Amino acid sequence: MNIADINAFLGRYFSSVELVGSDQTEITGPAKIEEAVSGQVSFVSNEKYYRHIAQSGASLLIVHPKAPVDDAPEGMSFLKVEDPYTAFVFILRHFAGARRIAESGVAASASIAPSARLGRNVSVGEHAVIGERCVIGDNTVIGPNTVLLDEVTIGSECTLFPQVTMYDGTLIGDRVTIHSGTVIGADGFGFAPQKDGSYVKIPQMGTVRIEDDVEIGANTTIDRATMGETVIEKGVKIDNLVQIAHNCRIGGDTVIASQAGISGSVKIGRNCLIGGQAGFAGHLELADKISVAAKAGISKSFMQSGQAIRGVPAQPMRDQLRQEAQIRSLGEMKAKIEALETKLQELWERLDGLA
Amino acid sequence: MNIADINAFLGRYFSSVELVGSDQTEITGPAKIEEAVSGQVSFVSNEKYYRHIAQSGASLLIVHPKAPVDDAPEGMSFLKVEDPYTAFVFILRHFAGARRIAESGVAASASIAPSARLGRNVSVGEHAVIGERCVIGDNTVIGPNTVLLDEVTIGSECTLFPQVTMYDGTLIGDRVTIHSGTVIGADGFGFAPQKDGSYVKIPQMGTVRIEDDVEIGANTTIDRATMGETVIEKGVKIDNLVQIAHNCRIGGDTVIASQAGISGSVKIGRNCLIGGQAGFAGHLELADKISVAAKAGISKSFMQSGQAIRGVPAQPMRDQLRQEAQIRSLGEMKAKIEALETKLQELWERLDGLA
Amino acid sequence: MNIADINAFLGRYFSSVELVGSDQTEITGPAKIEEAVSGQVSFVSNEKYYRHIAQSGASLLIVHPKAPVDDAPEGMSFLKVEDPYTAFVFILRHFAGARRIAESGVAASASIAPSARLGRNVSVGEHAVIGERCVIGDNTVIGPNTVLLDEVTIGSECTLFPQVTMYDGTLIGDRVTIHSGTVIGADGFGFAPQKDGSYVKIPQMGTVRIEDDVEIGANTTIDRATMGETVIEKGVKIDNLVQIAHNCRIGGDTVIASQAGISGSVKIGRNCLIGGQAGFAGHLELADKISVAAKAGISKSFMQSGQAIRGVPAQPMRDQLRQEAQIRSLGEMKAKIEALETKLQELWERLDGLA
Repeated sequence: MNIADINAFLGRYFSSVELVGSDQTEITGPAKIEEAVSGQVSFVSNEKYYRHIAQSGASLLIVHPKAPVDDAPEGMSFLKVEDPYTAFVFILRHFAGARRIAESGVAASASIAPSARLGRNVSVGEHAVIGERCVIGDNTVIGPNTVLLDEVTIGSECTLFPQVTMYDGTLIGDRVTIHSGTVIGADGFGFAPQKDGSYVKIPQMGTVRIEDDVEIGANTTIDRATMGETVIEKGVKIDNLVQIAHNCRIGGDTVIASQAGISGSVKIGRNCLIGGQAGFAGHLELADKISVAAKAGISKSFMQSGQAIRGVPAQPMRDQLRQEAQIRSLGEMKAKIEALETKLQELWERLDGLA
Repeated sequence: MNIADINAFLGRYFSSVELVGSDQTEITGPAKIEEAVSGQVSFVSNEKYYRHIAQSGASLLIVHPKAPVDDAPEGMSFLKVEDPYTAFVFILRHFAGARRIAESGVAASASIAPSARLGRNVSVGEHAVIGERCVIGDNTVIGPNTVLLDEVTIGSECTLFPQVTMYDGTLIGDRVTIHSGTVIGADGFGFAPQKDGSYVKIPQMGTVRIEDDVEIGANTTIDRATMGETVIEKGVKIDNLVQIAHNCRIGGDTVIASQAGISGSVKIGRNCLIGGQAGFAGHLELADKISVAAKAGISKSFMQSGQAIRGVPAQPMRDQLRQEAQIRSLGEMKAKIEALETKLQELWERLDGLA
Repeated sequence: MNIADINAFLGRYFSSVELVGSDQTEITGPAKIEEAVSGQVSFVSNEKYYRHIAQSGASLLIVHPKAPVDDAPEGMSFLKVEDPYTAFVFILRHFAGARRIAESGVAASASIAPSARLGRNVSVGEHAVIGERCVIGDNTVIGPNTVLLDEVTIGSECTLFPQVTMYDGTLIGDRVTIHSGTVIGADGFGFAPQKDGSYVKIPQMGTVRIEDDVEIGANTTIDRATMGETVIEKGVKIDNLVQIAHNCRIGGDTVIASQAGISGSVKIGRNCLIGGQAGFAGHLELADKISVAAKAGISKSFMQSGQAIRGVPAQPMRDQLRQEAQIRSLGEMKAKIEALETKLQELWERLDGLA
């Protein structure tokens, strides 16, 4: 596609796209601005990278309307849009195309239970297993060696990479992507302590419901509810190696970074950002738009929307930063106490002299 | 089953079960007390939830002998037992029944080595792989796509969910449950540093032994011993994404929450509780009945049975809580130091006035 | 093999091996010094374990030239080398032999795409899946149920245990070992925030390159680059449940312990040691030979080679240890402040008396 095609393509997403330079150059693919060569497209969003423009070998840069383009190298064209970063993401998506995870249709080695129902244009990879009464929506791709136990329901346009496991009864919406090794619907961790110190397993009779447009990384675990549902609301994005325990509810468009751990019955609001390796005690609640720093340990509810929290135990960002500064100044405090002790001793002696 | 049946069923576990109300209502399933409708059974254990009794739609509540049942809605029956929670767990187990993980018998697509020996009534799911000289006990279920390398020995009544991996020589007792994605017996992380900065792998020649009645969550890893055995004793419960390194020994009926990490050669006592994301340095020991708080970093042994520990580095709970309180009062300490400085300065000046 | 054989075998690795005692005893295997019985070989490296020599049942001990061997039990022989630990590792490797992960050749149930090219003596286990245009080097073993998507390139002498997943385009060098459940090349965690609070996925168009002699534990995740490559350099050793995000570069012979998490675009130098559960913020850099303590939270770059860092946020080891000591002495500081307040009050009153 040439620059004119990209111009037209971006016009579908942005109300205004302004061309500077020729629109006839053929564009072969995207690249980072420092690495781009002739024929490639790149972008600059942050002003501090404007200095890269003059050195870049790219044939096309996506920039903000205010970006300085006068010193651009000979033959470089520009497309100016309000949000160059998102524009570039759409260009990336165009060039990325679809990854082939499985052949079209059902692989001969896949095991599909007789009572399972598959929509139109479903792909099922080699050695995948689909249990009794599963329902798979149109255009969904099930990767090789992925296992769905009985009565799993998956919407349309979903992508399950290889080696995913879904326990019986899991419910998945449309346009959901799940990466390899992730386990959805395993038993919640519930055991009733007995007088002799042993435990009796509490049956985990609920399920997991994942709404539309969710993406879940690799080797993550989301446990089924004891009773009722563990719910991942629309648009949530979850990274690799995350633990979400039984009966949690994660609000729409919340983002959870790698290795975070969310204990049972936690309710997280919409549009929250959960940092890597953060950990939640059970039965807590977070309001909407809360930002949790990496490695935080959340031991109580935070109900003020938009709040940033940090630390172990987590507290509002400002309190935690003040506390961290106080800890860093402990040496200074110690010195002041010693100075006070010396001065007081002097004073005391001086007073003795007076008396 | 009706209430009379449940009465009889609980009579198998409790010395005294007292009925209040009719025992003829048919019970269709369990529910939470706030959500239960006619025909369902629920329970109240904690006194603070007694207020739910009057609002509940349940047809049967399991309660303590002292629970107030006089204001119960018309038609609600009660069964009174000493431990309503455990009674309800038994009722849940009854209604849960067995989950179907694999068809009875050996799936046609499973690969069973000729020298493997399977007990009576073993189920092996689609595309499962069972290596040479494996021995599988009666009534054990091996899920689809689960892989056992050579000489794995599994007892009877075990459940291996899909996509479990057991390396060669792993030993599993009776009534063990292992969830999907868990890897038992991978190599311990041992490398001998060389003068040139590179490493030579230390062969991991030991194995893993898991005793009876253990349950292990999803995507957990338990490494084989360098020499000898990594041992998980009877009744241990391990959550998802837990790391247990080579040569550890986890004492009977200990519970380990998600994302905890236990380094090599750690010995944990019986009936301990290990919180989520806790981490252990290598070669440590914990006595019995020790409770480790979530996110704790354990860098030395704790040998006092029944102790609670917390913090990074972990210390006895009381010391750690005192220290956390001191940190929270740093602002106050700083203010006191400043007040002292001011007052001392005043005093000094006053003394100058006197002299 | 007898002691003379072991003597000759060690002679291949060490310039000097000195025999004390008979070299005719047959050695059946290795053991820990406390557990060794007649016919077994063990070692003592650390002086503080010399006391075990007199009690050991081993027929052969590998020791340092300076080890005291005069009080050795009747019939015990010694081989003296400069580095007894590494010598014992070589002996372990000899006795360990090769683990059987898959039959020689390609299992009938494996799915190999027609365009994949396999080298000489490649083993592919049951139900493994190898995608289009994959290239597998000589003598490499692909375990059962392992999945390679399209265009994966693997060198020679590699071992992929069961249930590994490699996404399309992954590049693996020679003599690489990857344990079960590990996912290489899943999408980096990148989403562009939109004005309505939702996210648009940023296509992850790069790949992962793993150089020679790398070993990766179980259930670890290494994400592909957004553009370009995530690189694991030669000789790196990675433990279980580690997260390495998109566009990271891990320097040669660096060691990463279990449950560490490395955010996007982090660059770690050569010969670093990363402790368990350590976490890195994105876009940081570490110089060579840096040692990161377990549970550290690294929020900025550390560029001084050989440095040890620790804490959350991480700082140089000495500063962190001083700070931890200061925190432990907070009770004392508080007492001193109270003493100062009392004394100052007395002084004030005494001055009032004088005036």
